[in-house]
Amino acid sequence: MNGFYQGRRVLITGGLGFIGSNLAIALVEQGARVTLLDSMIAEYGASIDNIAPIQHQVVINYSDIRDVHSLPYLVRDQEVIFSLAGQVSHIDSMLQPLTDLDINCRSQLSLLECCRQFNPHARLVFASTRQIYGKPDTLPVSEDHPCEPTDVNGINKMASEMYYRLYASVHGLATVSLRLTNTFGPRMDLRNLKKGFVGVFINQALAGKVIRVYGDGAQRRDFNYISDVVQALMLAGSSVLTPGQSFNLGHDQHHSLLEFLETLNRHIPLRYECIPFPAELQAIDIGSYYANYDKFFRLTGWRPQVDLDNGLRLTAQYYAAAQQPARRRGQAL
Amino acid sequence: MNGFYQGRRVLITGGLGFIGSNLAIALVEQGARVTLLDSMIAEYGASIDNIAPIQHQVVINYSDIRDVHSLPYLVRDQEVIFSLAGQVSHIDSMLQPLTDLDINCRSQLSLLECCRQFNPHARLVFASTRQIYGKPDTLPVSEDHPCEPTDVNGINKMASEMYYRLYASVHGLATVSLRLTNTFGPRMDLRNLKKGFVGVFINQALAGKVIRVYGDGAQRRDFNYISDVVQALMLAGSSVLTPGQSFNLGHDQHHSLLEFLETLNRHIPLRYECIPFPAELQAIDIGSYYANYDKFFRLTGWRPQVDLDNGLRLTAQYYAAAQQPARRRGQAL
Repeated sequence: MNGFYQGRRVLITGGLGFIGSNLAIALVEQGARVTLLDSMIAEYGASIDNIAPIQHQVVINYSDIRDVHSLPYLVRDQEVIFSLAGQVSHIDSMLQPLTDLDINCRSQLSLLECCRQFNPHARLVFASTRQIYGKPDTLPVSEDHPCEPTDVNGINKMASEMYYRLYASVHGLATVSLRLTNTFGPRMDLRNLKKGFVGVFINQALAGKVIRVYGDGAQRRDFNYISDVVQALMLAGSSVLTPGQSFNLGHDQHHSLLEFLETLNRHIPLRYECIPFPAELQAIDIGSYYANYDKFFRLTGWRPQVDLDNGLRLTAQYYAAAQQPARRRGQAL
Repeated sequence: MNGFYQGRRVLITGGLGFIGSNLAIALVEQGARVTLLDSMIAEYGASIDNIAPIQHQVVINYSDIRDVHSLPYLVRDQEVIFSLAGQVSHIDSMLQPLTDLDINCRSQLSLLECCRQFNPHARLVFASTRQIYGKPDTLPVSEDHPCEPTDVNGINKMASEMYYRLYASVHGLATVSLRLTNTFGPRMDLRNLKKGFVGVFINQALAGKVIRVYGDGAQRRDFNYISDVVQALMLAGSSVLTPGQSFNLGHDQHHSLLEFLETLNRHIPLRYECIPFPAELQAIDIGSYYANYDKFFRLTGWRPQVDLDNGLRLTAQYYAAAQQPARRRGQAL
């Protein structure tokens, strides 16, 4: 990054969540002047504990990205804006589709409008998702794969990515979208059991519960450790890129769900069983997915540095250390 | 239609607008029990005059599709729902993107949710648009052409189409989307000059003003006369179709904008000049577009019956007759 973030004014929406807090810590290390925006909705994973190491070196602003009134003031003067706040549960997007739309679609358009009007020179990095592809036709999935999302969350994120592209092409905003795949590591929200299997599996393993795998566990996925995703976000915010582009993140290694569990078992002893897919999840399941991230590599040099085994080791260590004080405060992890 | 609509309970959102009112008149002729929902927002083209021939044979309910509170009651017991209410100006979608989102995206999801919860057996016909394709790569455009909308309106309509598809595949709703191209004819809104060139050109011709053509007028388009679109909507609502599908409408004949003007000139004498594209319109222009509508033809037998010349003749006759009383009421057409 060559000192790019030194002294930069950076805004992170969802700044106290899993990815936002890890990014904030890295940015503070690089000398950035960081403002974190978060609405602290309990089930979305934000926690003041997440930013304990930097709590007094950042500005925290408690507000929701759906609040169109405060946003114009908050975006002013920011040089880089990381748009990470989101509703990430696929099943919740089917149960409360309008909430998902308001957070993942309307708020992104609202943020872009604020930037167009009040801060057109900010760089904008949007955390998109592999979910926009739907069930892959071919593997690995490149950025030109058709988008046929299988749930409301995927549709809303796809529409938002298109807004980011449009605001680049029509209004000249410097936007970039990263399509994240399974991201895991310290500070991930283990309490919400509707947020994807990685957090659920780690939660159940830590709690000594029998892990339930839907289907045969043969679906393959790629996994990015949080430090690699943080690096990708920082590169996306600091690199000279043609505005409006979308990039996959991903990993050269991919693993079946059962292989994931076997790897996790090395660091947290666990038991699991395969059970039939619940109908409401089967309907929106995307099967196997792993990405081709060559496009982002070619332009930024980004490559994931941490493999699944090392990532899970670091994650297990973090939660082993965190579990004690958390229990003292009466919080279930 | 073989009497399909006889005695059917039908709801039309945007029922007092251009397409909605023409559809309502045709449905009443077929014996349907029609409820029209409209918020009567002035610039969106709704008018009580539009339904003068059937005013006492329909139920009119003044409400906005953004009103999530009244919608559950309104959808109950309807057998066919035509979702036509929308914001259709591309330039307005760029100027007021959140308004476009609320009407064209959020309200569609809200309507689908209401149907899922309170009326899962209704047939739902959504008026989509060719705008979701963006600038065509190949002509004529088939339904499998990639979707890269060039404006906020196109993105929002595309997201909504995806909701309609999703609610069919996951929740089993009987949805169908028609991707309309340039629709013209009696009751079209000639007063709003931001709604597309057909209405603007007819308005200017009627007013004796010099018509301004942006660019060289060589862009080609296909045109559907309103009676053909009404027929397509009624077929979409009455045919046995695999739920969730999207279909192009279109016309075998396509014309450049200058050819359109020459044809219009046969029925309303006019003058025009070509001027450079305004930047804000150039940025979202899609160039030439015409559709392949074979898919809908194969499944329903639909074919447009009215060509541009006949359609413009009928349109000119309608507005010639309408102009007198309109002028008496002090309304500029």
